[in-house]
Amino acid sequence: MQSKTPNDSLTIMTDLVLPGETNPLDNLFGGELLARMDRASSIAARRHCNRITVTASVNHVVFSKAVPVGSVLTIEAKVSRAFQSSMEIFVDVWMEDRESGERTKVNEGIYTFVAVDRTGAPVKVPGIVPETKLEQERYDGALRRKQLSLVLSKKMDPQDATELKALFL
Amino acid sequence: MQSKTPNDSLTIMTDLVLPGETNPLDNLFGGELLARMDRASSIAARRHCNRITVTASVNHVVFSKAVPVGSVLTIEAKVSRAFQSSMEIFVDVWMEDRESGERTKVNEGIYTFVAVDRTGAPVKVPGIVPETKLEQERYDGALRRKQLSLVLSKKMDPQDATELKALFL
Amino acid sequence: MQSKTPNDSLTIMTDLVLPGETNPLDNLFGGELLARMDRASSIAARRHCNRITVTASVNHVVFSKAVPVGSVLTIEAKVSRAFQSSMEIFVDVWMEDRESGERTKVNEGIYTFVAVDRTGAPVKVPGIVPETKLEQERYDGALRRKQLSLVLSKKMDPQDATELKALFL
Amino acid sequence: MQSKTPNDSLTIMTDLVLPGETNPLDNLFGGELLARMDRASSIAARRHCNRITVTASVNHVVFSKAVPVGSVLTIEAKVSRAFQSSMEIFVDVWMEDRESGERTKVNEGIYTFVAVDRTGAPVKVPGIVPETKLEQERYDGALRRKQLSLVLSKKMDPQDATELKALFL
Amino acid sequence: MQSKTPNDSLTIMTDLVLPGETNPLDNLFGGELLARMDRASSIAARRHCNRITVTASVNHVVFSKAVPVGSVLTIEAKVSRAFQSSMEIFVDVWMEDRESGERTKVNEGIYTFVAVDRTGAPVKVPGIVPETKLEQERYDGALRRKQLSLVLSKKMDPQDATELKALFL
Amino acid sequence: MQSKTPNDSLTIMTDLVLPGETNPLDNLFGGELLARMDRASSIAARRHCNRITVTASVNHVVFSKAVPVGSVLTIEAKVSRAFQSSMEIFVDVWMEDRESGERTKVNEGIYTFVAVDRTGAPVKVPGIVPETKLEQERYDGALRRKQLSLVLSKKMDPQDATELKALFL
Repeated sequence: MQSKTPNDSLTIMTDLVLPGETNPLDNLFGGELLARMDRASSIAARRHCNRITVTASVNHVVFSKAVPVGSVLTIEAKVSRAFQSSMEIFVDVWMEDRESGERTKVNEGIYTFVAVDRTGAPVKVPGIVPETKLEQERYDGALRRKQLSLVLSKKMDPQDATELKALFL
Repeated sequence: MQSKTPNDSLTIMTDLVLPGETNPLDNLFGGELLARMDRASSIAARRHCNRITVTASVNHVVFSKAVPVGSVLTIEAKVSRAFQSSMEIFVDVWMEDRESGERTKVNEGIYTFVAVDRTGAPVKVPGIVPETKLEQERYDGALRRKQLSLVLSKKMDPQDATELKALFL
Repeated sequence: MQSKTPNDSLTIMTDLVLPGETNPLDNLFGGELLARMDRASSIAARRHCNRITVTASVNHVVFSKAVPVGSVLTIEAKVSRAFQSSMEIFVDVWMEDRESGERTKVNEGIYTFVAVDRTGAPVKVPGIVPETKLEQERYDGALRRKQLSLVLSKKMDPQDATELKALFL
Repeated sequence: MQSKTPNDSLTIMTDLVLPGETNPLDNLFGGELLARMDRASSIAARRHCNRITVTASVNHVVFSKAVPVGSVLTIEAKVSRAFQSSMEIFVDVWMEDRESGERTKVNEGIYTFVAVDRTGAPVKVPGIVPETKLEQERYDGALRRKQLSLVLSKKMDPQDATELKALFL
Repeated sequence: MQSKTPNDSLTIMTDLVLPGETNPLDNLFGGELLARMDRASSIAARRHCNRITVTASVNHVVFSKAVPVGSVLTIEAKVSRAFQSSMEIFVDVWMEDRESGERTKVNEGIYTFVAVDRTGAPVKVPGIVPETKLEQERYDGALRRKQLSLVLSKKMDPQDATELKALFL
Repeated sequence: MQSKTPNDSLTIMTDLVLPGETNPLDNLFGGELLARMDRASSIAARRHCNRITVTASVNHVVFSKAVPVGSVLTIEAKVSRAFQSSMEIFVDVWMEDRESGERTKVNEGIYTFVAVDRTGAPVKVPGIVPETKLEQERYDGALRRKQLSLVLSKKMDPQDATELKALFL
């Protein structure tokens, strides 16, 4: 199985924010954005491994800016690191100003997907080789995040999470 | 402002999994579940503070079991800890077997909401007093998770995250 | 087959009223509420009989108060009486004031569901034993409503609808 | 205000049954059909009175046949009787066989709508003059159904429901 | 296979414009109208041939008037000409003024559908005999439009499009 | 107002085909695809002119291949030519094979949008300079298509449609 680059899985989902997807402040509802990010991530994961992929966890999504109805929203998802059968995906979300055309980052999220066969059993995925500085940073952080996820779900003792522990020493 | 208990914000959302919300394996699509959990959490947050609430972050959602089309899904959300204007909400998700009526836990998530006024500016929320052992555990963990969130978004130095750091020493 | 109580089938569906579900007065559209009540009723019916259930009729739904966009709406459904293969379900709907947290009843409905097997053929359902005064009242009324339904669809002669007839004598 | 005929408000809504609107038996979900019938009824009511109309009650809907996914469904709604500010609407639903083109009646329902102004206050509606035998029958029955609705909601003593009472004597 | 008339396939789809289907000017979103027109056309095509039908092309849709939220929209679709296995469908769209009840034409479109069997292979459809002057005009134009479609997709040399060419000579 | 290139408006919308958007053959419903193409086109038009844009017409959409449920669909829209206040947009649609990752063209469409101000009145848009051979071809064809549209809607005499006429001589 040949390794791939993060760019091989780059998925761009540009769409409008319609009135039916807003909260009482007339901004995009958080849950609708989470669903779009999940769809974009699942495509990026699938492009990396060419298999069916299912959501395993959402590790961290931060909503930094409200997105008003009528906005153009661009979601970009890329695999940041591949493990045995799981893949970590970074999702960046931008909003575009209609008049100036300028893009503002409004949201960032980290999802984990698992590659499965038709019966739902996990299958092996290709490795990944980061190319840019940002991709390398996200690749390095992925192991710490995986340990964190295992610690939080009590599947790993904090003492064994070597890379994560190093952060605090 | 009087303190409340986690139970004051308990929100129960029972609904079916319809065919239009499934993935290629005929199970509930991850993104749809994230959206439902966000709606339930936003109601729990609102019940705690009696204000408009908006999603600030999704800290951790784990999908442990697939949910087939036609399932009855119950989402229970409760505020686990209140800070200045933000609230951490724990969301537990169960699936119900039609024939035996037994419930299986399929998913768990942690969301953070912020209380805002009509202009979107943050407002103060009431404190919270945990009552059960589980509520106390989640209350205690919330501070570590808040520090973790600040560390991950580079708004806090790992060395200053005292409670979090203690986990690894 | 062991009898059950109305509470065994209690189904709570709390959800928001989103902007895409409103009429020109910015209140919840009647049809959307009917659909949510039907989903809640079908779950209550299923919890009573542990079988697939399909809508047989909607006997009476009264919309007493408009529900503005952004409201938190709580639907509670319970089986009120079980016949051979059909079940009557009572659905109560409350709206919640955001600032005071007070609940107002906005709607009440009566649905009938039938338990079926995989081929769509009716199957027998367990009996039911009402526990509270309100449950007993609804249980008693169910027979009159069943007769009324048969009379209205011309499957029963008004003269044979003994319980219903008694109401007017 | 000039009287109208039932035909003046005839509303025809033909549409497909899509896979996203089905129950676990792959038939049209009851709640989705109730919502479509409500939309068709609201248009018929509006065509009768040329005002904004809101759902007041659903008096009786009977599901006599399952409607499989992919079906062509035709809903026909007509005002059957007009009172002060409320209107009773009869809704007939047919399914169409693709190969023979034959129509089968699958469902029938009775809805009540109220005409309101921009503030939601009830306004007077025109009278109605039935033309066909079926329209006359439905017109005559409407008064009994109105009394029944008032009796069931305890706004009228059964002894005062003269027309309804006559049915059982 | 017996010929039919355009009226045999007449399909009427009356529905509301709900708030979730609007653009930032609070008018019906173009894409939503295109989807409704496609559903109505597919039913008209199916009524003509009594087979499964799939969209082959959209030849010309003109949006002449904006349709505000809350409007009643009536779509009428009729087969205008039948070829071997394809059918041209004309779709007319009207908006209805609530107060006067008057209808204004807001949109017109021409769709082409193909009749297929369960495997997706094209099957023969019945001929059509226009009855009114407008139906005859649309029938005559259909051949020119078919040639135009073939020319635009480079499947026919402009010189061979005899009927179309005649328009410009 | 400075001219732009087609690439300045390039809009990429990658998304899944979910089960709720399919026809009876389990392929993407034509109407749903038309709606997605309209949303992508409206964003491309808006990126070109930085104004509100509304659909004016759909000139030609050809469905050449069925798109099965579960597919990854990529829609790419670019402005091909700008007139006074209207813009022609070319939309190309690809489906992606999960296992090989190969893309197949499944659909192509041409939409026209108009730039408007807050009152809905048309406003002037920037010019456009094609860069690639394909962009030049589409730019050249746009004038003929505009004449064709005017001829078909009887707003131009076929004899005056000089560029279009030349095609047949």
